[in-house]
Amino acid sequence: MGGTRLTAYEIITKKKRGIELSDEEIRFLLSGFLSGEIPDYQVSAWCMAVYFKGMTYRETFSLTMAMVESGRQVDLSQVPGVKVDKHSTGGVGDKTTLVLAPLVASCGAKIAKMSGRGLGHTGGTLDKLESIPGFRVDLTMDEFIANVKRTGIAVASQTADLVPADKKLYGLRDVTATVDSIPLIASSIMSKKIAAGADSIVLDVKVGSGAFMKSEPEAYELARTMVEVGRASGRKVAAFLTDMSQPLGRAVGNALELREAIETLSGGGPPDLVELCTTLGGQMLAMAGIAGSLEEGRHMAMDALASGRALDKFRAFVEAQGGDSRVVEDPDLLGRAPHEEVLKAWAGGWIGPMDTENIGMAALALGAGRRRKDEPIDRSVGIVFMKKTGDRVAPGEPIAAIHARDKASAMVAGEMLARSISIAGEEVEKPRLVRDLII
Amino acid sequence: MGGTRLTAYEIITKKKRGIELSDEEIRFLLSGFLSGEIPDYQVSAWCMAVYFKGMTYRETFSLTMAMVESGRQVDLSQVPGVKVDKHSTGGVGDKTTLVLAPLVASCGAKIAKMSGRGLGHTGGTLDKLESIPGFRVDLTMDEFIANVKRTGIAVASQTADLVPADKKLYGLRDVTATVDSIPLIASSIMSKKIAAGADSIVLDVKVGSGAFMKSEPEAYELARTMVEVGRASGRKVAAFLTDMSQPLGRAVGNALELREAIETLSGGGPPDLVELCTTLGGQMLAMAGIAGSLEEGRHMAMDALASGRALDKFRAFVEAQGGDSRVVEDPDLLGRAPHEEVLKAWAGGWIGPMDTENIGMAALALGAGRRRKDEPIDRSVGIVFMKKTGDRVAPGEPIAAIHARDKASAMVAGEMLARSISIAGEEVEKPRLVRDLII
Repeated sequence: MGGTRLTAYEIITKKKRGIELSDEEIRFLLSGFLSGEIPDYQVSAWCMAVYFKGMTYRETFSLTMAMVESGRQVDLSQVPGVKVDKHSTGGVGDKTTLVLAPLVASCGAKIAKMSGRGLGHTGGTLDKLESIPGFRVDLTMDEFIANVKRTGIAVASQTADLVPADKKLYGLRDVTATVDSIPLIASSIMSKKIAAGADSIVLDVKVGSGAFMKSEPEAYELARTMVEVGRASGRKVAAFLTDMSQPLGRAVGNALELREAIETLSGGGPPDLVELCTTLGGQMLAMAGIAGSLEEGRHMAMDALASGRALDKFRAFVEAQGGDSRVVEDPDLLGRAPHEEVLKAWAGGWIGPMDTENIGMAALALGAGRRRKDEPIDRSVGIVFMKKTGDRVAPGEPIAAIHARDKASAMVAGEMLARSISIAGEEVEKPRLVRDLII
Repeated sequence: MGGTRLTAYEIITKKKRGIELSDEEIRFLLSGFLSGEIPDYQVSAWCMAVYFKGMTYRETFSLTMAMVESGRQVDLSQVPGVKVDKHSTGGVGDKTTLVLAPLVASCGAKIAKMSGRGLGHTGGTLDKLESIPGFRVDLTMDEFIANVKRTGIAVASQTADLVPADKKLYGLRDVTATVDSIPLIASSIMSKKIAAGADSIVLDVKVGSGAFMKSEPEAYELARTMVEVGRASGRKVAAFLTDMSQPLGRAVGNALELREAIETLSGGGPPDLVELCTTLGGQMLAMAGIAGSLEEGRHMAMDALASGRALDKFRAFVEAQGGDSRVVEDPDLLGRAPHEEVLKAWAGGWIGPMDTENIGMAALALGAGRRRKDEPIDRSVGIVFMKKTGDRVAPGEPIAAIHARDKASAMVAGEMLARSISIAGEEVEKPRLVRDLII
């Protein structure tokens, strides 16, 4: 800790006054927190001061690296080629990884992705993959690296020794109303991405009613902070700002989303999901040096979808992790919810903007997600949209199908859904999906 | 707690967003903190949110009353007459209580004052009184009330059951850099004043280089907040804003200050101390209904000093608390530091503004105060100023005498003192002592 005598009190005071903290001070605070020498009540006060006064990119980088170094780092040096990773800040119907990972791997990049399990409207990537009979996400580190080497792709649950500081700090932030601080969010995300060992990282920062970042300025700030931190760590990083003013694609719900991902990998799928996967994928290929530009990468990605190469890679990926790849030909193996209810247009017109967060709550009410860590999730339930913002509807035309375990939960979700969707008397513009690229 | 389900998380979030908390929410937070059901790390995050977003007068009142009700309240109803109390936010050389309490009591008001012991540049009122051989500040509640009844005055150390919430909350604020929040300061002070049972309270809010409040706007805000809270509780309250850009009076140090207080009670004393005591005293007498106005009260107070009545009351007060009242005639009984060093003017001119906080640090270096709770203090050491801001000095003329336990500590303090005082080539205006009265 050097020769000077640091104290948590002084560090809180400096932050409170908006004075930039040194790398040494940030490391002192984090290591004291982890060792228990600095009590939680000082760290939570510091987090609240950070909420109000922010952190510079330099401070955020210091915190990120201190978190990275709190645990084991994945060493991908044995894997030949450029390793690329992707992170989304999350939204309703976001099944991008399910398509993107095999898509990019089928073009020659290596995907070594670790995911956490969180609370949410639906399960996360891991839960969606676990809809496949036999699929294992709890790989050992050796299996993880071996799979990336052999098939070019592995998606596994984050090991406990990866950034343990994040787990502890997030736990404290979660109960002290200090989650929504951009530098703290950025360091939490980037510490895990950096520790996971990829050379290049593409970030998908969602913005809109269904995203954690509701406004463009805060989404830009988060994207910019993560790009700066990632670059300072020596990684290539790019961040897309993408629309989350309505669910992504048509399906919301674990197995329903996996089904939609397979459809997309087979060359079909909803246009917005295809656009997002080929855009993110194009950038990943460009950053891996496989494509000469984002545009060239996008064409390579579209070709991989059309040719069936991406689907073949998906099949190999599923098999490598113990899953039953027959789901590709027979998605009904994923299971179906016993009850289906259709929400019909109560008027004619154009579908307006959606309260996407509330749509997520409807999915949660069906049982698709978790409110608490120990809650079981129902992988079969969810919602499939036939209409999206800007689409024309006639009175009585189906807007969405609700897949439920029983009629009662379908009714509850149906009402929530109806309140989340408006039908306008005038034409509504379709939202632009990819809003910006920050590099 | 009523029918709604309150959570600390929601209360922190509301405060963070600047939403006014209800009385119920504030009481829930405080009682949960005291019972241990709400952990320290949530309360410290809440304190930091309060630091940034403030509290309305209504919220501050709620917190104050919840703190008052956390412990025992002094019942002064058996004491006939109007009970008045006084609180100063503290400064260097502030021995006002030593003069004011007997002064006001000698005019017929009842003074029942409880003081805490804190850390500081010198000891507090209790330490200064304890310079008198035999003087006891640890009175039982019965002794305390009996003394007020009999002699009209008691000054005792605060009992542990008076506002225990303040002790616990202050302890947390002290280590989380959340002491300097005006509503939290106001509720800490006012809870103790309200619990101590007086009908009328005069507050002395110090402002300047030697005060906790360095600027007038923040001193005004603190004064206004305390007046509003006190009034909402049904007490008469008035607050003076007074200058602390230089030490009050001439003496800094426990026995030296007591000696100066006796000199003032005897009709002498430094003009600024006399002015402050007669002004605060005049207001206390007016609020007690003994004088018709502040001006009339001031004259009554001046008369009490000139006539010797105030000094007689001081003698009775000292004896009632077991002290040796011969100190009045023979102040040398208070003891003298063995070593004296004189700081002489290094140039001719006018004494400029002083770094009063640093003068306090010089007193602390002599051993007059406490850095930690368990530190012993030396009651005999300190500084006596011959010159103050605006006074003319010739080169080599004495500015201050340093009373020390040895030459080494006198040299250290002398250097600190010299750095705290400037000598200007042009005339310097004397600071106005009483800046404003907030009622």
